[in-house]
Amino acid sequence: MKDFKPYYAVIFTSTQTENVEGYNAMAQKMEDLAKQQEGFIIIDMAREAVGITVSYWRSLEAIKALKQNSEHLIAQQKGKQQWYSWYNTRICKVEREYEVGEK
Amino acid sequence: MKDFKPYYAVIFTSTQTENVEGYNAMAQKMEDLAKQQEGFIIIDMAREAVGITVSYWRSLEAIKALKQNSEHLIAQQKGKQQWYSWYNTRICKVEREYEVGEK
Repeated sequence: MKDFKPYYAVIFTSTQTENVEGYNAMAQKMEDLAKQQEGFIIIDMAREAVGITVSYWRSLEAIKALKQNSEHLIAQQKGKQQWYSWYNTRICKVEREYEVGEK
Repeated sequence: MKDFKPYYAVIFTSTQTENVEGYNAMAQKMEDLAKQQEGFIIIDMAREAVGITVSYWRSLEAIKALKQNSEHLIAQQKGKQQWYSWYNTRICKVEREYEVGEK
């Protein structure tokens, strides 16, 4: 892929507590917030024993802007206090990509 | 994290066909294979509308070795032909990480 431009992935992995009241509404709100941000590319998520949400971004600046968003900070606080027993956030640079078929 | 050493993530995102016969056994085999490889760190996976599997590795060489493993090549071929309607593999460099709580 000679025109491949590196971009960034935020891998958010989590396990939930039993008290997930309000979680779904906030998760939807955070997804909508991400999609409105400049530099957003796409988001994928799935949850079984662990939840994995991966959002993709054009730049580190775009990720920083999301992180500093006040609504995002409130959700993060609530997540720490109530919804998540554990979470990990990794900021990654996507260096190569292969795709087969159509989504 | 002053002792943070960059490592690598392979993000495998997929949608399945309706013909998933043999898939679970092969998925388990591939997970076991990854865990035996030198340079393997950890693997997380979850599936809902899309499946997301993220494996973490000490080096690009370790990822290359897995990719070239003959059992992995067979699984890949079978995945293309039968199990997946679409998939995407991204090789990423993990540059930063934040963790809260215990997994």
